[in-house]
Amino acid sequence: MSDSLQQMAADLQRFAAARNWQLYHSPKNLAAALVVEAGELLEPFQWLTEAQSHALPPEKLAEVGGEVADVLIYLVQLSTALGLDPVAEARRKMAINEVRFPAGVQAVSRLDQRT
Amino acid sequence: MSDSLQQMAADLQRFAAARNWQLYHSPKNLAAALVVEAGELLEPFQWLTEAQSHALPPEKLAEVGGEVADVLIYLVQLSTALGLDPVAEARRKMAINEVRFPAGVQAVSRLDQRT
Amino acid sequence: MSDSLQQMAADLQRFAAARNWQLYHSPKNLAAALVVEAGELLEPFQWLTEAQSHALPPEKLAEVGGEVADVLIYLVQLSTALGLDPVAEARRKMAINEVRFPAGVQAVSRLDQRT
Amino acid sequence: MSDSLQQMAADLQRFAAARNWQLYHSPKNLAAALVVEAGELLEPFQWLTEAQSHALPPEKLAEVGGEVADVLIYLVQLSTALGLDPVAEARRKMAINEVRFPAGVQAVSRLDQRT
Repeated sequence: MSDSLQQMAADLQRFAAARNWQLYHSPKNLAAALVVEAGELLEPFQWLTEAQSHALPPEKLAEVGGEVADVLIYLVQLSTALGLDPVAEARRKMAINEVRFPAGVQAVSRLDQRT
Repeated sequence: MSDSLQQMAADLQRFAAARNWQLYHSPKNLAAALVVEAGELLEPFQWLTEAQSHALPPEKLAEVGGEVADVLIYLVQLSTALGLDPVAEARRKMAINEVRFPAGVQAVSRLDQRT
Repeated sequence: MSDSLQQMAADLQRFAAARNWQLYHSPKNLAAALVVEAGELLEPFQWLTEAQSHALPPEKLAEVGGEVADVLIYLVQLSTALGLDPVAEARRKMAINEVRFPAGVQAVSRLDQRT
Repeated sequence: MSDSLQQMAADLQRFAAARNWQLYHSPKNLAAALVVEAGELLEPFQWLTEAQSHALPPEKLAEVGGEVADVLIYLVQLSTALGLDPVAEARRKMAINEVRFPAGVQAVSRLDQRT
């Protein structure tokens, strides 16, 4: 893991250890916690139009920020538990996507490309 | 956003722009994509025991790494779209949790603390 | 549980027992499996506009039907495992919603009512 | 759709129409709402052991019942919006699974069969 996430990973481990929470933090449980938070992150958007989702009122945006935090925290903890570097994983995936979805195919629908 | 994630955010924006995908990348759609990937991240764990989830075979771990990547990519893109810094959000949440769940209360169940 | 779902619950129990799968079917695991399938159910919609989501092409609709099936199957199995009647639970919730969201308040946004 | 779910579908349509909520109830939005509720359904289980998940205290079980209700309500509404019969879809899937996972292969891991 790298830089700011690496520091966060260390701090999160200290935090969990100080509370005897490592017992709960199996990869399975962390993956479950992550999808729960991802659902909470989607919740404020579920009845909005896409246009409305670009212009959240401040208190809604703060709520979304708190859910972004929870997802990132569990993602870092899960990665630590599995010995994965999430940034390296993302970089690897981005390189794959660069090949899988060639640029310059203008006006091609994302749906057509992905299906 | 900071350091490696900031660079990733810029690269992801270039990637989407080169494919005319910004059209699809409303915060609402990105939050939906994120929870879809979070579900895929949980999928390999769903029938495992917690103990088994600590010791994934290599090909399973690689699969999980790919899903960790997808979650992080959408989390960074969603944060960019909303003008949020996910690391700063996580740091803010960690400070709140430090107060909300006092350390040193040994042998206290996470469940009791959180309910 | 009632009628067609009750019959389904019995058939699903027989199916799991014949494969020694009850071992895997703890309520925790079934709830995890359900959210995984719910993510797969959202997946075909994630880049569609709301208008497009009303008019799925036949093969997409068949795919969605398969995911609807998986969600219902896990919901019935989870309910059986917990001794819950999902239809009775839904009816109870519908009665609560009838009071919580009064009708006749025309043109009131769902968002305003729910927040 | 059949019997109790068919009646529920009709009642839910009346409920939404009386509040002008059909506007919000695109299949895309209903699928998003469903996964949000599925996350809430997993939430009470995330830190429990599988054994604990079999023996929920009454107030936890009531909470889970409320989430089961929400998932079923959105599943029925989504099915109505798409013209799908969820019970027929589940029956079709169960017939497929009967062939895909042959019974009588005792002591075979669910994981091996499914991968």
